[in-house]
Amino acid sequence: MVELDFEKTGGLIPAIAQDYRSGEVLMMAFMNRESWELTVKTGIVHYWSRSRNRLWKKGESSGNVQEVKEIRIDCDNDCILVKVDQIGEAACHTGYVSCFFRVVEGETTRIDGKKVFDPADVYGEKK
Amino acid sequence: MVELDFEKTGGLIPAIAQDYRSGEVLMMAFMNRESWELTVKTGIVHYWSRSRNRLWKKGESSGNVQEVKEIRIDCDNDCILVKVDQIGEAACHTGYVSCFFRVVEGETTRIDGKKVFDPADVYGEKK
Repeated sequence: MVELDFEKTGGLIPAIAQDYRSGEVLMMAFMNRESWELTVKTGIVHYWSRSRNRLWKKGESSGNVQEVKEIRIDCDNDCILVKVDQIGEAACHTGYVSCFFRVVEGETTRIDGKKVFDPADVYGEKK
Repeated sequence: MVELDFEKTGGLIPAIAQDYRSGEVLMMAFMNRESWELTVKTGIVHYWSRSRNRLWKKGESSGNVQEVKEIRIDCDNDCILVKVDQIGEAACHTGYVSCFFRVVEGETTRIDGKKVFDPADVYGEKK
């Protein structure tokens, strides 16, 4: 296993997910050592959820997992770039393809992104 | 000024720089509130250097500044994506275009990136 500098940032390393076809940056989340090792071994991206304080297999609820196409690490061994095949097209829990669907324009933001699903349909109660 | 969630991560927010033409992810570094405001106001990317513990205008030594073409923020207001025109082509202090010039292959890494300059020529002592 390639060794990363988990100590530098208190055990969590930023990981950027990029669509392997379009090059669109989909999201950024953190990996701890366990999620890093699982990502490399399984070929499915795992993060560490800071809000839930637990291992997070991306797409475990929605089914929108991220299949690893390529993993790159940066010059300092403290950041990860994963090129992924985003199953279900959308990486963001809001239903947008990318979490970066807002462009900063002066004092406000403008939405510029493709919305694939309605979160209520995916995460909401079954009717 | 668009408000970001600097408190969530102790004052520092990850910022991803992406080449606005090629879509290549160039680097990831952190911004504090001051560097965020300077980036938005000046149109030149500023980070916060954790190793030097000070404001860091990217390219201040090498001249390879990053001109802002577009700024995006993520769904949680705690990550920034900056599309930049990378002056001098290379973002990495090693001379590579991108800091992510190593691909993980099994137990090791393979270099896959374009090297633009020799760091000794840029940062080294003048002869």
